[in-house]
Amino acid sequence: MEKKARSYKFETLDEMSINTIRFLAVDAVEAANSGHPGMPMGDAPMAYVLWKHFLRHSPSNPKWPARDRFVLSAGHGSMLLYSLLHLAGYPLALDEIKRFRQWGSHTPGHPEHDIKIGIETTTGPLGQGFANGVGMAMASRYLANRFNRPNYPLFDYTVYAICSDGDIMEGVSSEAASMAGHLLLGNIVYLYSDNKITIEGSTDLAFSEDVGRKFEALGWHVQHVGGNDLDAIAKAIESAKAETTRPSIIIARTIIGFGSPGKQDTAEVHGAPLGKDEVKATKEKLGWPLEPAFFIPEEVLKEFRAALPKGEALEKGWLDMLSGYEREYPEEGREVRAIVEGRRPKDWLKDIPSFTEKDGAMATRSASGKVLNAIAKSTPFLIGGSADLAPSTNTIMKGMGDFLPTGVGRNLHFGVREHAMGSCMNGIALSGLVPYGATFLIFSDYMKPPIRLAALMGLQTIYVFTHDSIGLGEDGPTPQPVEQLAGLRAIPNLTVIRPADANETAEAWKAALLNERGPTALVLTRQNVPYIDRTRYACAEGLSKGAYVLADSAEKPEVILMATGSEVQLALEAYDDLSRRGIKARVVNMPSWEIFDAQDEAYWKKVLPNDVTVRLAVEAASPMGWHKYTGPDGAVLGIERFGASAPYKTIFEQFGLTVENVSATALALLNRKKGLFLDSI
Amino acid sequence: MEKKARSYKFETLDEMSINTIRFLAVDAVEAANSGHPGMPMGDAPMAYVLWKHFLRHSPSNPKWPARDRFVLSAGHGSMLLYSLLHLAGYPLALDEIKRFRQWGSHTPGHPEHDIKIGIETTTGPLGQGFANGVGMAMASRYLANRFNRPNYPLFDYTVYAICSDGDIMEGVSSEAASMAGHLLLGNIVYLYSDNKITIEGSTDLAFSEDVGRKFEALGWHVQHVGGNDLDAIAKAIESAKAETTRPSIIIARTIIGFGSPGKQDTAEVHGAPLGKDEVKATKEKLGWPLEPAFFIPEEVLKEFRAALPKGEALEKGWLDMLSGYEREYPEEGREVRAIVEGRRPKDWLKDIPSFTEKDGAMATRSASGKVLNAIAKSTPFLIGGSADLAPSTNTIMKGMGDFLPTGVGRNLHFGVREHAMGSCMNGIALSGLVPYGATFLIFSDYMKPPIRLAALMGLQTIYVFTHDSIGLGEDGPTPQPVEQLAGLRAIPNLTVIRPADANETAEAWKAALLNERGPTALVLTRQNVPYIDRTRYACAEGLSKGAYVLADSAEKPEVILMATGSEVQLALEAYDDLSRRGIKARVVNMPSWEIFDAQDEAYWKKVLPNDVTVRLAVEAASPMGWHKYTGPDGAVLGIERFGASAPYKTIFEQFGLTVENVSATALALLNRKKGLFLDSI
Repeated sequence: MEKKARSYKFETLDEMSINTIRFLAVDAVEAANSGHPGMPMGDAPMAYVLWKHFLRHSPSNPKWPARDRFVLSAGHGSMLLYSLLHLAGYPLALDEIKRFRQWGSHTPGHPEHDIKIGIETTTGPLGQGFANGVGMAMASRYLANRFNRPNYPLFDYTVYAICSDGDIMEGVSSEAASMAGHLLLGNIVYLYSDNKITIEGSTDLAFSEDVGRKFEALGWHVQHVGGNDLDAIAKAIESAKAETTRPSIIIARTIIGFGSPGKQDTAEVHGAPLGKDEVKATKEKLGWPLEPAFFIPEEVLKEFRAALPKGEALEKGWLDMLSGYEREYPEEGREVRAIVEGRRPKDWLKDIPSFTEKDGAMATRSASGKVLNAIAKSTPFLIGGSADLAPSTNTIMKGMGDFLPTGVGRNLHFGVREHAMGSCMNGIALSGLVPYGATFLIFSDYMKPPIRLAALMGLQTIYVFTHDSIGLGEDGPTPQPVEQLAGLRAIPNLTVIRPADANETAEAWKAALLNERGPTALVLTRQNVPYIDRTRYACAEGLSKGAYVLADSAEKPEVILMATGSEVQLALEAYDDLSRRGIKARVVNMPSWEIFDAQDEAYWKKVLPNDVTVRLAVEAASPMGWHKYTGPDGAVLGIERFGASAPYKTIFEQFGLTVENVSATALALLNRKKGLFLDSI
Repeated sequence: MEKKARSYKFETLDEMSINTIRFLAVDAVEAANSGHPGMPMGDAPMAYVLWKHFLRHSPSNPKWPARDRFVLSAGHGSMLLYSLLHLAGYPLALDEIKRFRQWGSHTPGHPEHDIKIGIETTTGPLGQGFANGVGMAMASRYLANRFNRPNYPLFDYTVYAICSDGDIMEGVSSEAASMAGHLLLGNIVYLYSDNKITIEGSTDLAFSEDVGRKFEALGWHVQHVGGNDLDAIAKAIESAKAETTRPSIIIARTIIGFGSPGKQDTAEVHGAPLGKDEVKATKEKLGWPLEPAFFIPEEVLKEFRAALPKGEALEKGWLDMLSGYEREYPEEGREVRAIVEGRRPKDWLKDIPSFTEKDGAMATRSASGKVLNAIAKSTPFLIGGSADLAPSTNTIMKGMGDFLPTGVGRNLHFGVREHAMGSCMNGIALSGLVPYGATFLIFSDYMKPPIRLAALMGLQTIYVFTHDSIGLGEDGPTPQPVEQLAGLRAIPNLTVIRPADANETAEAWKAALLNERGPTALVLTRQNVPYIDRTRYACAEGLSKGAYVLADSAEKPEVILMATGSEVQLALEAYDDLSRRGIKARVVNMPSWEIFDAQDEAYWKKVLPNDVTVRLAVEAASPMGWHKYTGPDGAVLGIERFGASAPYKTIFEQFGLTVENVSATALALLNRKKGLFLDSI
């Protein structure tokens, strides 16, 4: 830890180091002919002070679990981060900086999570990094509560971030800040670059709140400094670190595009190259050699690279501590190792329950609650909660305690803040834990941006989305999802699973827990759905293939009924009805399109044979996307309007989602198909 | 206006009136066996004071343009609103209250915009009503600035809302509050029902910010009162109205479920019926007759219904004022009439420009900017702006002034607050104006909830979403949309239009301006797209049918290429290539699925003949949904991954979105089709 009352001497070398950061950014943006030079030019001083004097990291092992986190929330200033990473000795070559924003480079326009080179999280969409950091601090609090012991402060790191006006204006940061203040997350130290300039011009156009007072009201420790005052910045960071019961924000008055005689302090320098002449003028003004571009003075590099041995020593000290810990607390030690190495305990999935006929009809949200509670004990890496809907989403892990300002449990309480929930989940997942977050499916709309980022980063997050259709009934069209399933399914690398009964819900949780390469959304009913008799129908394990034949005629089917979730029951009953009418039908249960799409072609053809072209999909949602499966002679029974307020059985009836209508539509399709054949013969 | 230092005498009749509201809610929830009794029971006193002494409205004409607005942001407390509407004499019969939450009733679970019975806006998704109200206040400021004259305060109304903890926790309300404070919207008076209870239990679980201090920091006038102290509430509302330069929030400490001996002040009373016994106990405790249910004392009704003649008098006074205004300011008077009656000026679309070859290649965002500026003069009802991206989205109406705290213009500056932009736009649209709001397509994710609500309410809002694909290039995957088009297209009643060139952009604006029954999203490129020579290809007016044949072979086509936006050019060039190879091809330009789907079957078949089954769709986005059009032998060239950071031409190449690949894929489909025929013969 840094000592109190330390004195910071800033000299010419500091100035040179700061200018090195600035001009790496300027030159890279110029070479790419696109990018954002203004922010790195303005924020280089505070980033430099932070990295030089405070950030505890190990550039030779960016994954060191006890490292401080540095989040560049203002992701458009990516060159600030790339410059720092290269200078400090992370495995990011200068050539990569020269290839800024080019195909296949490690230096894309906005930072993309890549811990191998020290990029903690993907940023750019404003507010996300801010809230990711809050999630990281929540994770560290959980790890510290669970594992730290006297003399063994294993998890004791600080989460730093640099934020911009845009970050602060986005609602998600207000949500996350309110949560951080509530939870007394004292290991947060954020630097807010208050440069008074946004894309449209002065912040006066749209932004005049008193940010400091707002953060105080949210329970934060607030300081103000000049953005070029190295000494003041250092002292403020020191005070912020000393404040351990409140998150801290340091409001630094920075100057966007600092040093550019023609453009500093204007919106023009935010998102476009300076231009050849202005680069020259800026280098001249700051006393920087015009040539070569990407110039790094030797003494600057040497000074920066001191971070390498320093980091190695820090890491060694920590590993020594961990060894001692393992001797003294062998059980906890094994758990720590497993978590930091991302290994799962042996047989950790064995407690996933199965359900029997005597469990009866059950909402899949209830089944989900039972599964979650069954596995809670063997999954210490799993923490989660809901956006103020725990009782409705069945997401409390009983007996596992509440994660409160003073409590130490695993049940998180996000408040009515879906967006921050999603973004904090990403921060938690980036910290080696697996977070789940619950709300009604409709409110996935409020948290779409972080869901997308989890998918983009390949993070294991689990969304428990209940109340998944008009089946929620009387509450009406505002909370009734219609287009949400389609919207989620369209996100690359997100796995959406809508189980049909309790046993499939158990399988769905299993799939989510095993899906380490991306987020999974569990889509669950509010209303009861019948128990599916697996002695009569196929096993629920079929879910692991995304779609499977649940019921089938002995001979080749004439018609395939496809459904998900609560509508599988409609398909099964229609299947019975059609069978009685002598129609050879098949029911394909399709809980997850993404998992099905990932199977091989042979399996596809087995489930949906090419030559059975009469297919009817039934889902209480927008039909969008189903035509891929229903094919030429198929149809979709879905919902192409908003919902309604009434008891849910009435709504299903009114919307034509009944056994009778499924049956009748299937018959009509068969007749149409026969008619078409007659026509074409 | 209310006089200062007025004294409010509250007597038994007030108490009875308040209990009438409470028990209408209790009984309706009981009858429906679902709903939220706690909030109406707790908030009835403040709602009563507001409606009795302050709200200037005319129940016999709910549309009176100068009425005060009352927004129930905490929409789950819908019975509070329905009770008030019925009691005050709006055309909402008691029978409707008895049919609370039933199919086809006017009393759905959450309030749904229906101005005929006095429901200003659809609420339920938390935070939305709060922000709608800010939009309403922005609209009133615009109308006042434009039309009010000395002695003619035509637009002078106050926007009231009742908000809950949930409203305050949602980020969108922080965004909207920051905007309202910045804009000095002094005609906002919000009542915040601070009942300390959320669904999970005490707000202590997740919410401990100092709301009052936060709002002060955001520039609001803040007062605290007891939620049952009628006199204090009245005085606070009076002070809030007297404060004309800052928006006001009155923080009222209410008690959820007030009067219920067993359940008041608990989460249990939030979202479930009290139950028969507890209803009885509550009625007994508050001295209310147990029978009949839905009891309204005669004297209470009489007192409430005084609002009818009072409102008629208010309205008459206003109409007289308007007549005088029309005499004195005939031109403005005509404009006012047109706006409040929703009529458009004569020939108002005549200035929509067309573009010629000499305008050259042009980004559709640029074309959009030119169209917007061309029509600005003839559309005084159109106001809008962007979420801090005006220069990039080309959405400034030049010379029309800025809507600033002190300015009077039509160009809004929403700051980096996409969510509040969307929600405020809904409030503006609910006020008789047509708002447009601009951001990058990717950030439609941040504003999905209000887009959905605009569609649900059928509001005319226009979204200008630029930077619509990987075509934005170097900024990389975070701002590159992939699944956003599919997500937007899945929303019922939202019209999505992705024009292919400048002339189609003009047509797209025209369609948006004429679409008064719902929102329209214009989806526009960042990069230049070529001018499409309409002497060679079909007219851009084809956009008005959603899809149209742009290029065609003289004979019946063998293959149809479908595309939207920037990919239309790929299809046209592939068409040329295929033609050279002797393949008979057709290019169908499909700027809007929704508009196309609304055409009759004959048109459908003309554009996409049933017997031309080899179809290839090309769009730089998720393929989701295209299979509906491509059919059995078709395919989709889309993007099933996230984007990349590189110059955009490189990304298009790397992703296979090239003329060569379109051509080759079309040929492959033709060959496969031929192969299939061989197989099946």
